[in-house]
Amino acid sequence: MRIKQVLLLCATFLFLTLNEGAVADDKGRPFVRIAELEIDPAQLERFKAAATEQIEAAVRVEPGVLALYAVSVKDNPALIRVFEIYVDEAAYRAHLETPHFKRFREGTNDIVKSRKLIDTEPIILAAKRSKS
Amino acid sequence: MRIKQVLLLCATFLFLTLNEGAVADDKGRPFVRIAELEIDPAQLERFKAAATEQIEAAVRVEPGVLALYAVSVKDNPALIRVFEIYVDEAAYRAHLETPHFKRFREGTNDIVKSRKLIDTEPIILAAKRSKS
Repeated sequence: MRIKQVLLLCATFLFLTLNEGAVADDKGRPFVRIAELEIDPAQLERFKAAATEQIEAAVRVEPGVLALYAVSVKDNPALIRVFEIYVDEAAYRAHLETPHFKRFREGTNDIVKSRKLIDTEPIILAAKRSKS
Repeated sequence: MRIKQVLLLCATFLFLTLNEGAVADDKGRPFVRIAELEIDPAQLERFKAAATEQIEAAVRVEPGVLALYAVSVKDNPALIRVFEIYVDEAAYRAHLETPHFKRFREGTNDIVKSRKLIDTEPIILAAKRSKS
């Protein structure tokens, strides 16, 4: 599709042309959290769909949500890791009160077998910028 | 400058066309890795400085490095987690061969007490774009 090709070219061009961009610099240290979940393997697809829906909503509508990355461990896909970057801790607290997050938690609580939340201190958070 | 205008147009086009900002979509699935390191606590600052230097270089000069996030666990800062997003597995392999990465590994190998590398399968990688 033509538009897809243009988009891909634009994206490639941007990545190749621009220097690095950081999600946040030292002045505004974001709040970073790692969640480690174990999911009922029989319900994994249901969990993934719910997580995708809530993460898309959070990044789209919440100004304080900088990034949410959910991955499953290759050797054991029932183990999920979520790497979460918020503008600050208040943004994280606000996220917990949103309708999309509450719907996600209520809808998946019965299939999450364990949940470990790890608070962290950023050392460096570096990502390519989408633009200069 | 002409190139700036092209870039701006590309960026605008991307932003207007796409909904939320994802680092990559389902078609071009990136390679995501999590590294869990334990550092000699007495050498933590040295490790952080070396990690920061190599991550800044990698995101700046390697087109295939999309994001590198290094954090330490709040309860035990000698435990480091690195969340790594590459365009694909080849980009990760290329990263291992760069001078900045080799310098980092050689310069810190004696202070890394343990190293666990976790291969993952992305579920969703969503991040705010740098502009609206």
